[in-house]
Amino acid sequence: MDYTYAPGRNHLFVPGPVNIPEQVLRAMNRNNEDYRSPAIPAMTKNLLEDVKKIFKTTSGTPFLIPTTGTGAWESALTNTLSPGDRIISFLIGQFSLLWIDQQQRLNFDVDVVESEWGRGANLDILASKLAADRNHSIKAICIVHNETATGVTNNLSAVRKLLDDYNHPALFLVDGVSSICAIDFRMDEWGVDVALTGSQKALSLPTGLGIVCASPKAIEASKTAKSVRVFFDWKDYLKFYKMGTYWPYTPSIQLLYGLRAALDLIFEEGLDNVIARHSRLGKATRLAVEAWGLKNCTQSEEWVSDTVTAVVVPPYIDSAEVVRRAWKRYNLSLGLGLNKVAGKVFRIGHLGHLNELQLLGCLSGVEMILKDIGYPVKLGSGVAAAAAYLQNNIPMIPSRI
Amino acid sequence: MDYTYAPGRNHLFVPGPVNIPEQVLRAMNRNNEDYRSPAIPAMTKNLLEDVKKIFKTTSGTPFLIPTTGTGAWESALTNTLSPGDRIISFLIGQFSLLWIDQQQRLNFDVDVVESEWGRGANLDILASKLAADRNHSIKAICIVHNETATGVTNNLSAVRKLLDDYNHPALFLVDGVSSICAIDFRMDEWGVDVALTGSQKALSLPTGLGIVCASPKAIEASKTAKSVRVFFDWKDYLKFYKMGTYWPYTPSIQLLYGLRAALDLIFEEGLDNVIARHSRLGKATRLAVEAWGLKNCTQSEEWVSDTVTAVVVPPYIDSAEVVRRAWKRYNLSLGLGLNKVAGKVFRIGHLGHLNELQLLGCLSGVEMILKDIGYPVKLGSGVAAAAAYLQNNIPMIPSRI
Amino acid sequence: MDYTYAPGRNHLFVPGPVNIPEQVLRAMNRNNEDYRSPAIPAMTKNLLEDVKKIFKTTSGTPFLIPTTGTGAWESALTNTLSPGDRIISFLIGQFSLLWIDQQQRLNFDVDVVESEWGRGANLDILASKLAADRNHSIKAICIVHNETATGVTNNLSAVRKLLDDYNHPALFLVDGVSSICAIDFRMDEWGVDVALTGSQKALSLPTGLGIVCASPKAIEASKTAKSVRVFFDWKDYLKFYKMGTYWPYTPSIQLLYGLRAALDLIFEEGLDNVIARHSRLGKATRLAVEAWGLKNCTQSEEWVSDTVTAVVVPPYIDSAEVVRRAWKRYNLSLGLGLNKVAGKVFRIGHLGHLNELQLLGCLSGVEMILKDIGYPVKLGSGVAAAAAYLQNNIPMIPSRI
Amino acid sequence: MDYTYAPGRNHLFVPGPVNIPEQVLRAMNRNNEDYRSPAIPAMTKNLLEDVKKIFKTTSGTPFLIPTTGTGAWESALTNTLSPGDRIISFLIGQFSLLWIDQQQRLNFDVDVVESEWGRGANLDILASKLAADRNHSIKAICIVHNETATGVTNNLSAVRKLLDDYNHPALFLVDGVSSICAIDFRMDEWGVDVALTGSQKALSLPTGLGIVCASPKAIEASKTAKSVRVFFDWKDYLKFYKMGTYWPYTPSIQLLYGLRAALDLIFEEGLDNVIARHSRLGKATRLAVEAWGLKNCTQSEEWVSDTVTAVVVPPYIDSAEVVRRAWKRYNLSLGLGLNKVAGKVFRIGHLGHLNELQLLGCLSGVEMILKDIGYPVKLGSGVAAAAAYLQNNIPMIPSRI
Repeated sequence: MDYTYAPGRNHLFVPGPVNIPEQVLRAMNRNNEDYRSPAIPAMTKNLLEDVKKIFKTTSGTPFLIPTTGTGAWESALTNTLSPGDRIISFLIGQFSLLWIDQQQRLNFDVDVVESEWGRGANLDILASKLAADRNHSIKAICIVHNETATGVTNNLSAVRKLLDDYNHPALFLVDGVSSICAIDFRMDEWGVDVALTGSQKALSLPTGLGIVCASPKAIEASKTAKSVRVFFDWKDYLKFYKMGTYWPYTPSIQLLYGLRAALDLIFEEGLDNVIARHSRLGKATRLAVEAWGLKNCTQSEEWVSDTVTAVVVPPYIDSAEVVRRAWKRYNLSLGLGLNKVAGKVFRIGHLGHLNELQLLGCLSGVEMILKDIGYPVKLGSGVAAAAAYLQNNIPMIPSRI
Repeated sequence: MDYTYAPGRNHLFVPGPVNIPEQVLRAMNRNNEDYRSPAIPAMTKNLLEDVKKIFKTTSGTPFLIPTTGTGAWESALTNTLSPGDRIISFLIGQFSLLWIDQQQRLNFDVDVVESEWGRGANLDILASKLAADRNHSIKAICIVHNETATGVTNNLSAVRKLLDDYNHPALFLVDGVSSICAIDFRMDEWGVDVALTGSQKALSLPTGLGIVCASPKAIEASKTAKSVRVFFDWKDYLKFYKMGTYWPYTPSIQLLYGLRAALDLIFEEGLDNVIARHSRLGKATRLAVEAWGLKNCTQSEEWVSDTVTAVVVPPYIDSAEVVRRAWKRYNLSLGLGLNKVAGKVFRIGHLGHLNELQLLGCLSGVEMILKDIGYPVKLGSGVAAAAAYLQNNIPMIPSRI
Repeated sequence: MDYTYAPGRNHLFVPGPVNIPEQVLRAMNRNNEDYRSPAIPAMTKNLLEDVKKIFKTTSGTPFLIPTTGTGAWESALTNTLSPGDRIISFLIGQFSLLWIDQQQRLNFDVDVVESEWGRGANLDILASKLAADRNHSIKAICIVHNETATGVTNNLSAVRKLLDDYNHPALFLVDGVSSICAIDFRMDEWGVDVALTGSQKALSLPTGLGIVCASPKAIEASKTAKSVRVFFDWKDYLKFYKMGTYWPYTPSIQLLYGLRAALDLIFEEGLDNVIARHSRLGKATRLAVEAWGLKNCTQSEEWVSDTVTAVVVPPYIDSAEVVRRAWKRYNLSLGLGLNKVAGKVFRIGHLGHLNELQLLGCLSGVEMILKDIGYPVKLGSGVAAAAAYLQNNIPMIPSRI
Repeated sequence: MDYTYAPGRNHLFVPGPVNIPEQVLRAMNRNNEDYRSPAIPAMTKNLLEDVKKIFKTTSGTPFLIPTTGTGAWESALTNTLSPGDRIISFLIGQFSLLWIDQQQRLNFDVDVVESEWGRGANLDILASKLAADRNHSIKAICIVHNETATGVTNNLSAVRKLLDDYNHPALFLVDGVSSICAIDFRMDEWGVDVALTGSQKALSLPTGLGIVCASPKAIEASKTAKSVRVFFDWKDYLKFYKMGTYWPYTPSIQLLYGLRAALDLIFEEGLDNVIARHSRLGKATRLAVEAWGLKNCTQSEEWVSDTVTAVVVPPYIDSAEVVRRAWKRYNLSLGLGLNKVAGKVFRIGHLGHLNELQLLGCLSGVEMILKDIGYPVKLGSGVAAAAAYLQNNIPMIPSRI
């Protein structure tokens, strides 16, 4: 029996791990297999080819690493940089903070550019640092595409433009954990050198795969990078890619078949349609928040996130109580406010395998919770605002027309 | 790949088959087993004991028949009645109509008591017929507890009272397909002689089990009933019950384990709590319908159904278009209007493994559809009305307090 | 937790229900769906077309009935015959006995032709009865293709030949429960009028689908057959086939997807290759039995069955003890001897999703059991005999060459 | 459709990943959950308590790391040692070789003690090194309990005895990847400081959990160890253990429920019974190899492995052809010979969720393959030898007596 049974379906609206499609659950419902048989390398070859599409790259080299996002970060950093290397890193929320912590513990010389939580990366400071860096002491720019703690999406093409404007050779490393497959991301066009995501986010799989993609420049950098690494070393992968066996250590057979199914679904829907769907869900959520008279943690429209919305509660309310109540009364899982915004925001994740009516159910739940805890919300107001937008914008389902 | 993929979860709001809990899907995810090993009879023994609880009977004998509701009907009739027997049967919608059709094809002398669709069984006529039947020519009263086509719940205790008032020995046969495990049903207290349901309804299993429960009086009747039957013959079951092997033919191992899991969940929630939850969901739906300015097909509060609501659309709208649009644009499955009410009503099923936020998502979808097809609904109105009620009435989840 | 856990995989060698392929389990691992959406009729249409292939018919009409083999029998009989009709039926084992019991309870005039258990249908008697039946009082010949209780396969083409020789119009009804999809069966070529099987046999699905296929002549007969039937009535199906909605009552969504997967696997292997595989498994089993110095219940090579082998034990051994011990010590499920051969034979089912190494594991288990209970078997002898044959006859796996 | 369909069940006899019990597959068949809800920490707490039992420790601290065995190695080393530390490491096969490679790349001063492949760790050399190391320059002894490439089990209690004899404080680090839960292992009794395994081995789960257990002494060492680490850093885990939330980054919900089910099965069978079962399977396999006239790669009885047997083929045979043929003709997955023994041995893995009849099926397959490729084996000989032993030693299944 489950530990905490509740009738009906759990409404999973944390910004990861997200809902898994039945198709993917089915694909993963299988015994182990010998990964050295010819079948697994053949499947892996196709997966590596196809996974590049979600990064929008043709020149990149993907790695499917049995790890989490934290491990994917470590893979990105240790393969391209050496201890003592100067890197610029933007601190805008809890996940960028954790990445910076990792960068410091890996002994890089981290030049932290901080923004108020709720604001995006300060690119003006980046510009001035790049301008001043005549001798190219900056080895890498590390940036989180979408800060999951605050619902802030950074402008990556602007970062690339600055690097180009200053003709700066720094590596461009991107955490796309809560963006890739949900928010427009263009590895090749934006000249990203390492991009990474985790299986449990917009790919809608269980946790367990850190997916890292390296540009030719990053692969080149990995040949001289002196950071100590073994488990995360790309060299081992590249050796096995060359041999055609692909795996330096045992992969999860189940996650490989799951990834196959997940990619098939994304391609069937169309990656751009997937992104448009997330855009609809994000917009609808923000309209509801506005209708409730609450503020989005994201301070400006330019940074709003289509995968997670952090909702600021009034000072007299503890946002953790919103989350607790959601779970205890409505079988609804919302995201807590973390660190600096703990108690101040709760988060609605709207990414992955999700549709509009699921979101509207969640929004109506949030309305009831707000009322439960004393915020004077008009029931139905947020749902109405969201629905008014969605009813004009939801497309027909292509397979059913 | 599925035939008609759509992103996110399908919102299944037909009045059966209904959503299956993950716990039940897991329990059924298994290879076949030898049903003659000691394990299956041991499990069956417990299942038969426990299944009596959902009928609220201690004296009844349950049969788990590998069939559908239609087969369960046939089992109830052919085991207790003989060709030519006079029975009273109430025609109040499509499913009572189908049962009557079966009764006629089985060569009973069916005395049909018809009501307008949207109204319950006419018990005044029953009273007069019982009063007139001094020589007890009426062998059985056949009644659908909840008419799934119109969302009408009949008053079974009133039927029993009439039978008692007239001291009439007729068998009392009840189709509880869309009521048992969701709407208050009391086999022993109401003196029901045969009650039946199907696994794909409030039990929240796949289709495949017709569950029939017979009172001692019904078992007695089966010894002389002359209707021809083999597959549906209770005698074969009773013979195997006595031997302790339980199965006259091969059961579905998967459905047995699924039933075990389904009953465990029902007992964990508490049958009365399950019924209270359905009551909440039904009430909330009716409040939404009212807020939309639409009419419930059910013509009086006394018959409203807590498992299905048939919503009457204005004459200028084709209700089938509501259902089509729900599926094609919102991944929402609603029930069609059937037969006399085809085109006139669409149905919202709210039974089985379902919670409040799922329902509110559905209701917001219905609002958008109504607007799509030209009905001047105020978006959010129904959701608001439902939520206002629910926010006051949803209990905390016991396992999470 | 399961009721009777044992380490490692259960070795399922009863002659049904059989092992389900992982691909089928995966396909069935899904929530319910609205069977009235366009998706299910579209799938059903393809299934009906494809299921005809396993009967080797192009002119037949298949019915996928939510029932077991017993129900499929009833469907075959009641749709084509009227009470009082004279039929010839062959009694050669427990399952033909049960079918005959059903025929008698359905009030046909059953002319039983009995053989010693272990022998096939006595076609000489059939010939004499046909010869004598100038006025065509015989309405149907009922025959079990493969008697599961004794491992006897009847010669259906010989039955057809007799009917042709005598130019007799009797319907030709075949129970193919343990033959179809495993033993060569040719509905059109042999002029079979109704053939039937169950999902849990060679199709390797869970129990729950009775699959019945009717020739044009049988369909014609159904228009005048007077047996009372509702649930099993083909007319209801045919009405819904015509409307294109296909289902007179709720099908099991899970079994439909499972059947789709099962047929896909059969077609990928190739039906004739599936049959050849069963032939190999049957032959190997018989060679092992011979090596053990035991006798096959089947009395002559002409009737040997490629799906089940009934092994005769010496008089001083109780065959039920073989089965009990298999389950209690070796996690091996064997078939009991039934009725007349109870205690005298145990049965090895070798049908469905099964390969040679699985069978050899079973045979080695049987050897140990025989030794356990005092039969002087030489360990390894049966396996060696089977392997000697198999090693010469197993083909390479086409997808892996 | 699968990539390389073959009829019947795949016979998975590589030494990992191994067969997953249906109970575990079921437990893992679920949607994602919010791992920050109270349910997951509660489950984790129990898991950590229970996982200690498979290490036979009460004082150890376990870590469930989302990684593979290679990552678990890295966790063990980097948390307890500093670059430049002198360690003794035994090279006896491919997996000890890979661990040593990792140790060297992590910049330890590795004192490699090599044995011929097929022999165990040379403990005489260890003794002399310990004797000579008066100033305790040796910081750790690294040893693989069971070398999966050669089927060699080292004597860990002898290692402990030497450390005690010389009163040497070196840490005792053990790779138990292919031993723990299958071969007797006693962390506390043998004074092991870090022990580790992977989920896809004897625990019979999918790949994805590196399970590491640290003694108090190892935890103490981790406070000063200077190896750079972030993802694998125990400190992060310990911080979250203290807070009661347990997870520094997102765990795989599915693997947690799977681990719960796997431990439940192991405890139901009894850990010592699980080990005894592996002992039976190992012994039976070795008897078969002997009967075939082939040699075990393991050169002495003292090192034989109960989880994997590496079988030496005659010089005129390429062992890779045995493995290829097994897969292409018999749907049997065997282990290749690796590195020095490539082409010379093939490996039979007999660990995890496996029983005797499964093994016998495998052995009969190996016999046929050997004959296929020209080795003059007597079919049935190995099966007979194994069965003779097993028939005397298999216990009754407790739940079925």
